[in-house]
Amino acid sequence: MPLLSQVHYPMPIPDSQTIAEAHTRIKPYVHYTPLLTSTGLDELAGCKLVFKCENFQKIGAFKARGAMNAVRSLSSKDLSKGVATHSSGNHAQALARAAKIAGVSSYIVMPRTSAEIKKRGVRGFAGEIFECEPTLEAREKMLAEVVRKTGATEIHPFNNYAVIAGQATAAKELFEEVNDVDIIIVPVGGGGLLSGTALAAAYFSPNTIVMAAEPTGADDTFRSMQSGKIETSQANSIADGLLTSLGDKTFPIIQRYVKEVITVSDAEIISAMRLIWERLKIIVEPSGAVPLAAVSKAKEKFYNKKVGIILTGGNVDLTRALNLFTTV
Amino acid sequence: MPLLSQVHYPMPIPDSQTIAEAHTRIKPYVHYTPLLTSTGLDELAGCKLVFKCENFQKIGAFKARGAMNAVRSLSSKDLSKGVATHSSGNHAQALARAAKIAGVSSYIVMPRTSAEIKKRGVRGFAGEIFECEPTLEAREKMLAEVVRKTGATEIHPFNNYAVIAGQATAAKELFEEVNDVDIIIVPVGGGGLLSGTALAAAYFSPNTIVMAAEPTGADDTFRSMQSGKIETSQANSIADGLLTSLGDKTFPIIQRYVKEVITVSDAEIISAMRLIWERLKIIVEPSGAVPLAAVSKAKEKFYNKKVGIILTGGNVDLTRALNLFTTV
Repeated sequence: MPLLSQVHYPMPIPDSQTIAEAHTRIKPYVHYTPLLTSTGLDELAGCKLVFKCENFQKIGAFKARGAMNAVRSLSSKDLSKGVATHSSGNHAQALARAAKIAGVSSYIVMPRTSAEIKKRGVRGFAGEIFECEPTLEAREKMLAEVVRKTGATEIHPFNNYAVIAGQATAAKELFEEVNDVDIIIVPVGGGGLLSGTALAAAYFSPNTIVMAAEPTGADDTFRSMQSGKIETSQANSIADGLLTSLGDKTFPIIQRYVKEVITVSDAEIISAMRLIWERLKIIVEPSGAVPLAAVSKAKEKFYNKKVGIILTGGNVDLTRALNLFTTV
Repeated sequence: MPLLSQVHYPMPIPDSQTIAEAHTRIKPYVHYTPLLTSTGLDELAGCKLVFKCENFQKIGAFKARGAMNAVRSLSSKDLSKGVATHSSGNHAQALARAAKIAGVSSYIVMPRTSAEIKKRGVRGFAGEIFECEPTLEAREKMLAEVVRKTGATEIHPFNNYAVIAGQATAAKELFEEVNDVDIIIVPVGGGGLLSGTALAAAYFSPNTIVMAAEPTGADDTFRSMQSGKIETSQANSIADGLLTSLGDKTFPIIQRYVKEVITVSDAEIISAMRLIWERLKIIVEPSGAVPLAAVSKAKEKFYNKKVGIILTGGNVDLTRALNLFTTV
């Protein structure tokens, strides 16, 4: 049964005006993140790379955009009852932050196995945490209960058009600064960033080809594009932001606008992550390195092109990351 | 005996016009690096921090500026004979790069114990390496020999006014973007960046107080300021860019313009470095973290002020960094 809030505010696929409005709406609350380039990386990759640094975004990830747009798109009546989600990752913090700035409550369902640092992140934005067993079923059940009791509006991490419109603003900013991007490539998990990026390209940079990068161990988008229906993720990769499957709002957009999905191994992801740390001197999480891994692997597809990459986030435990580097 | 090139081109302490000209001269060849801020770090530090990201500079460090200005300030006759220096660090790469861009030779004296990656960096810019024993005496002797044989001009890493004027451009850019900096604090080794920053503040932001940060295990600047003469460094710190003593060109400028030198332990440096990596999502080398360590240690001196920090560079081996993080 759909949640009431979803029945009350049906939205069509975001059009260009919706995305432009989302951008105006969230601008006071999120960073206009910088672009970085590197001659050395360009030489290695055989193309001209432009990196959009969402690792410098509020809460350290692009998720700040979608959650902010979703919260600020609610009617004041709905907003007053707060917002809820289940997430153990960046969306949890992003939603808690957006709610705190709006002066309302946020209710975050998290598996009891979540890292303490992630819980602290949510509590730092006054989010109320509800712990559950670490299964999707337990999470959804607990969330339904929380929503029923509080009247809060569920904000899904990706299968929500207001979230998709918010995520689209990252690519929109990139296109505003660089008007001749040949290919834009972003990682895909649930598809919020990918579908938003695809819409932004279609509306604001129609000559840009949209590609996706995905771990081999969670290649459900690759398989979904082949089979024409949403396939389940094996959820087996170090890129822990990309383990979910697509949603019924993200998949149709991806099907229509995304030209190709390139899959890469964990070893290729770690090498790309190391390259970004060493050459760009910035911290990106494994998920954020997946597009560069794809460009490095399928060089011929990008040869001499101007390639936009959205570096999705920088929330990675340093000890974990540096240990990953010693494995390849 | 002074080198011929130094006799032929005596320069006074750079004035504001000299620094402005240096900036115009090097602009086509170096990055105008971005500033970063972090609400979280501001809360921790109790002041408003503005970070100038020279870790994103060409060759990964501010040294690209001074070397470029020095090379491009030479007469075409001198330039044609190439440039030389002894350095095992960022200046070696910076000079090789500047020479390569100018189309002339560079001769770099390096201790035979230098890391292979540093030698590769120099060779990557077509620098010719001369290996010597790892003592200051051996380095100077070898350099004198190289200069005599080749006719190259020695470009000292810091005790050179053209280099100082080049390093001054980093602070100049910071002041161009932020016109109400209360305090600027930079690390000090030989004093090239510190003296340049002090001049930039005096000329372009005269209300800004200049402070220095230094490792306790290499606190020669702190002691020099007390004794009134150049003291020798103990050279005992993980901040390997800050182990040298001041020069007769940098010290008088520092004496005149720098208000205070704050010393910090290696443990404090590592903690600050970790904070920068985790909160700003960027890679800085230990030397670059020394100013934040000083701000964290002497909070009361910075309380509620707007504080500019130059993040000097990001050239650090990732495995070494991991090992540092696990020691505190």
